[in-house]
Amino acid sequence: MHKAGDVRVEDRDDPVILEPTDAIVKLTASCICGSDLWPYRGIEPADHQVMGHEYIGVVEEIGADVKTVKPGDFVVGSFVISDNTCEICQAGFQSKCVHAEFVAQTVGTQAEKARIPHADGTLVKTPETPGPELYPALLAASDVLGTGWYAAVAADAGPGKTVAVVGDGAVGLMAILAAKQLGADRIIAMSRHPERQKLARYYGATDIVEERGDEGVVRIKELTGGLGAHSVVEAVGTQESFMQAVGATRGGGHLGYVGVNYDVQIPGIELFFAGIHTLGGPAPVRRFLPDLIDRIWQGEIDPGKVFDLTLPLEEAPEGYKAMDERRATKVMLTL
Amino acid sequence: MHKAGDVRVEDRDDPVILEPTDAIVKLTASCICGSDLWPYRGIEPADHQVMGHEYIGVVEEIGADVKTVKPGDFVVGSFVISDNTCEICQAGFQSKCVHAEFVAQTVGTQAEKARIPHADGTLVKTPETPGPELYPALLAASDVLGTGWYAAVAADAGPGKTVAVVGDGAVGLMAILAAKQLGADRIIAMSRHPERQKLARYYGATDIVEERGDEGVVRIKELTGGLGAHSVVEAVGTQESFMQAVGATRGGGHLGYVGVNYDVQIPGIELFFAGIHTLGGPAPVRRFLPDLIDRIWQGEIDPGKVFDLTLPLEEAPEGYKAMDERRATKVMLTL
Repeated sequence: MHKAGDVRVEDRDDPVILEPTDAIVKLTASCICGSDLWPYRGIEPADHQVMGHEYIGVVEEIGADVKTVKPGDFVVGSFVISDNTCEICQAGFQSKCVHAEFVAQTVGTQAEKARIPHADGTLVKTPETPGPELYPALLAASDVLGTGWYAAVAADAGPGKTVAVVGDGAVGLMAILAAKQLGADRIIAMSRHPERQKLARYYGATDIVEERGDEGVVRIKELTGGLGAHSVVEAVGTQESFMQAVGATRGGGHLGYVGVNYDVQIPGIELFFAGIHTLGGPAPVRRFLPDLIDRIWQGEIDPGKVFDLTLPLEEAPEGYKAMDERRATKVMLTL
Repeated sequence: MHKAGDVRVEDRDDPVILEPTDAIVKLTASCICGSDLWPYRGIEPADHQVMGHEYIGVVEEIGADVKTVKPGDFVVGSFVISDNTCEICQAGFQSKCVHAEFVAQTVGTQAEKARIPHADGTLVKTPETPGPELYPALLAASDVLGTGWYAAVAADAGPGKTVAVVGDGAVGLMAILAAKQLGADRIIAMSRHPERQKLARYYGATDIVEERGDEGVVRIKELTGGLGAHSVVEAVGTQESFMQAVGATRGGGHLGYVGVNYDVQIPGIELFFAGIHTLGGPAPVRRFLPDLIDRIWQGEIDPGKVFDLTLPLEEAPEGYKAMDERRATKVMLTL
C-alpha cells in the first residue's frame, strides 16, 4: 500500500531465512481483512507498507532450529508471530508473546512467499495436504475464525448461556459459529443486513436484533428477562457498538471484544457500574489453531462461507475496492 | 449532608417496617467511606442527603417474610441491598441484583437505626453477639474489606500469582490482606506513604513500589521479568491510576477495579492492545460476607486496623473533616 487507497502488486526480492527459527512459506492463498481497510481509508498511516496477515501455504525452507514443520508441509499460520514457549504463550495469550510481531506490519502475506519468524510457535501443519475445497476454511482459521472463536471464549460462551453478537461482519459471523460449537443455548445476532442475517442463522443464530445503540440494548434486555445477555461479543469496534455491547451484558456477565477504533473512549464510570467482565485484544489464534484445524478436517465447521469474493493475487487492488465499497464481506486472494 | 462540606447530625423519625422483607437494625457502629468524600467535596451532588452505607448492629424488628435474622441477632450488612435469590445474585453479583439499591442513597447508616430492605438477602448474622473488640473488623467487612476482597478475586489473585495493588487507602490495604489470604506468592503495594507502607507490609505486601504512572509501570515490569503482574488491583480511581493499573497487568492477566472517578475515560485502543481481563463494579459484598465473618471470628484476619480514628456519631462532621484533610484514613462512628 503506497498510500491510503493506493494498493499495488509489485515484484520484491524473495524472502530468505534470517534466523534459525524462521521458515519460508510458499503461499497458497491469502486474503484481505477488515482491518486492512483502516490504512486503506486513511484511518491508520500507510507509506509503502507490506499488506496481509492471513495465510495458508506450503513450507519451502526452514531454519536450523525449526522442528515441528518441514519443507512440503501444508501450514496455517497465526496473524501474530509467537514463540509459543514463553510464560505468556503458555498461559494462552500468544498474541502478547514476548516475541510478538504483527505479520501485517513486518511480513505481509498478500504475496507469493513469506518469511515467518518463530515458525514452530506460529505455524501449525495440517494432517495432510488439503484439496482446494478446504482452502477457504483453513484460511479463515488464520484470523477471522480464530478471532471470532477467541471473542466467544472471551465472552465465556457455553452451555446455559445466552450470547449476543454485536456485528455481522466476518468476525461476528465466526463468533456465532464459535458460540454454537461451544454449546450456547441461545445466540442473538445484531444485524440489519438480510444477507448477513441469513448467514448468521446458518452459523447458529437463534434470534436476530436489528436495533442498534440504546434501542439495541433495550431489545436484548427484552429478550433476556430484563437482565441482559450472559455473554456479549463486540465485533464492530466503534464507540456506539462498544457501549451497546457493554449495555447488553448482564451484571457479572462477560464481554469479549476483538477490535476497537482509535477514537473509542470508554467512560470508566459506565463500565464500572455495568459490573461486567471484559477480555479483549488481538486474538491468540495460535492457541486455537490445532483445535480449529481439527474441526475443519472433521467437517464439523464450515467457516469458509465468509469469503464472498475470490480473486487472483494480481487483482488485490480490486479486492480492496470491493470491500471498501461493501460489495464484498471478505476477499480471498489465490496464487 | 445539607450540601457539599456541610454535614449535620439531626433528629429524624425512627424508621419503620414498610415491606414484609424489611428489618429495622439498631446500629452499633457505622463509618465514613472514601466515597462519602465525593459529595463532601462537591464532585457528586448532595442536597440534604442521608449518609452512610457501612454498618453493624442488632436487629430490632423484622417484617413478616424475614426468615434468616430475628430481633436480637447481631448482623453485618452489605452496602448494596440484594434479594440474594435472583439469577444475578445466584451468579455472585449481588451488587447488580434485580432489587439492588444503594444503602448510601436510600437508607443512610450514619444513624442510630436503619430500615434495611430485603433483610434476608442483605444482612448476615454473626455466630454470637461480638464484643466491642470485634466491631472494627466486622464493620470493615461491610464495605472496605468486602470491596478489597472482591478486587483481589476480580484480579484473580491466588497461588503462583504476583499481585500488584494500586492504592494504599483502606480498600487497597484490604486487597493486600485478601491477596495474602488467597495465597498469592508475591504482593506489590504501590504506595509512597511510610505509614501506609507499614500497614501494607503488615497485611502481606512483599514489595513496595513508590513510583506512579508510567514510572510505576516500568518498576512493576522490572519486578516481574518484564512481563507485568498476573493480577492488578486498582483502588484509587483516577485516570492516571487506572491506566497505571492497565499498564502493570501482563498480557492475559487480570485487572480488578473497585471505583473510578466520573471523569475517567479509558482509551479503547490501549485497553485492547493490553490484552487483559478486567472486572469491576460495586463489590458484591454479600457474596463474601459469610466467609469474611467466619475468618474474623476465627481470628484469621484483622481488617479493623484500617480505622485510625473513632468518634461518636454526634461528631460525624469532624470525621468528614479529618478524612477530607487526610488526617485520617478511615473513621469509625460509634453509638
